[in-house]
Amino acid sequence: MQDAPQLNDLLAIMDRVAGPGLSEQLRFIAEIDKMKSIWRQTPLLDRSRKENDAEHSWQLSTMAMVLANHAGPGVDMFRVLQMLLIHDIVEIDAGDTPIFDTSEDAKTQNEREQKAADRLFGMLPQAQSTSFRALWDEFEARETEDSRFAKALDRLQPFLHNFLTAGASWQDFNANADIVRDRMAPIAAASSDLHNLVNALIDEAVQRGFLAPGES
Amino acid sequence: MQDAPQLNDLLAIMDRVAGPGLSEQLRFIAEIDKMKSIWRQTPLLDRSRKENDAEHSWQLSTMAMVLANHAGPGVDMFRVLQMLLIHDIVEIDAGDTPIFDTSEDAKTQNEREQKAADRLFGMLPQAQSTSFRALWDEFEARETEDSRFAKALDRLQPFLHNFLTAGASWQDFNANADIVRDRMAPIAAASSDLHNLVNALIDEAVQRGFLAPGES
Repeated sequence: MQDAPQLNDLLAIMDRVAGPGLSEQLRFIAEIDKMKSIWRQTPLLDRSRKENDAEHSWQLSTMAMVLANHAGPGVDMFRVLQMLLIHDIVEIDAGDTPIFDTSEDAKTQNEREQKAADRLFGMLPQAQSTSFRALWDEFEARETEDSRFAKALDRLQPFLHNFLTAGASWQDFNANADIVRDRMAPIAAASSDLHNLVNALIDEAVQRGFLAPGES
Repeated sequence: MQDAPQLNDLLAIMDRVAGPGLSEQLRFIAEIDKMKSIWRQTPLLDRSRKENDAEHSWQLSTMAMVLANHAGPGVDMFRVLQMLLIHDIVEIDAGDTPIFDTSEDAKTQNEREQKAADRLFGMLPQAQSTSFRALWDEFEARETEDSRFAKALDRLQPFLHNFLTAGASWQDFNANADIVRDRMAPIAAASSDLHNLVNALIDEAVQRGFLAPGES
C-alpha cells in the first residue's frame, strides 16, 4: 500500500473530478470544517467543556425554528436560518471575540472579520459568493427585521447557557447585571417576549447570587 | 455566596419565568445541547478527532445552502434546512448507528429512534411537536423530493470526510467499493451531479489504495 495521501493532495484530486463550480463549492465545504475547532466562551450545559462555533451555529439555527413564533410577522425564517448558519464562518480567520471582551482584540474585530469574509466567501463561485456575503453583511448591519431576529438569538443562546450553568462565563469575565442587560439590548429590538424573559432571568440570577448586581 | 444551583433547579426557575409554551420550547433547546456529546464515526478533516452530531448537523445544513443548485427544481430548500437541522436529534436517546454497522444495534435502530422521536419532539408545545415530528418522519421515509435531497447530503457529508482523510472510517469498518457504492445509492435519487462525483471519487480512492476494491 502506498503512503496515505494528505489533505492537500486529496483536495486537488477532488477539484479535478468535480470540475469548475462544484469544485469551489466543495473546497468551501471542506474549509468550514475548521469551525469545529474555533472555541467559544460558552459552556455546554453539563459544564464538561466549552462549545465550538459549529455546535453554536447548529443550536442557534435550531433555536430559530423553535422560537419562530416569537418573531415579528414580517420575519422570513428561511433567510434567518441561512444567516445563522453562516454568521460565524468569518471566525475561521478572525477568531471568536467574546461578547464581554474589551481588549485590543475586540477593537480590531470588525477589520479582521471583513478580511475574513473577503477570503472565505470569496472561495465560492462568483454569484454564490456575492449572495453569501450580502447575507453576512445584512446580519452584521442589523438594519432588517430578519437580521435583528437572527442577532437576538445569537445573544440569547449564550445567555441561556450562562443562566443554566449558574453564570459560568459571567464570572470568567466579571460581568454584572448592567453589563449583561446592555449586551442583551439587541433582543428588545426583535422580540418583546424574549426580552422580558431575559430581564426576568437576569433578576433571578442576581437574587440567587450568581450574577453581580449592577449600579442601577 | 450560596452554593451554585444545579441544572435542574435552574430549568425549574426558567419554567416559572417563561410560562406555558415558551417554557416547553426552552426545555427542548436545553435538551438538544446533548447533541454536542453524541459522537459519530466521521473524522474531522485534520484527523484530530471524530465529530459530534451538532457539528455534523451544522455542516450538513450549510452544505445544503452551498449545493442547492444541484437539487431538482422542485426542492424547497427551507424545508430541506429544517429537516437537516433536526434529523439527528433522535440520537440523543437512540445513539448514533454508523452507516457500515451490521450488528444487532443496527437492527433495533428504527424502534429506538421512533421511541426517541416520541419523547424528544414530544417536549415541544403540541402543534410544534406535530410539525417537527412530521418533518422527521418525512426525512426518514424519503418519499418526497425534499427528503431525498436532504438524505443525499446526509450520505455525502461523511463520504467527503472519508475521501479527504484517505478513508479513515472505511478502514475502521473494512468497507470496500461495493459497500460504499451501495450506501451512497440515495444520492442517485436526488442529484446526478453529486452521484457522478461520488462514483468518480470512489474510483480514485480504489486506484490510490485507500478503499478496497469490490467484487464487481
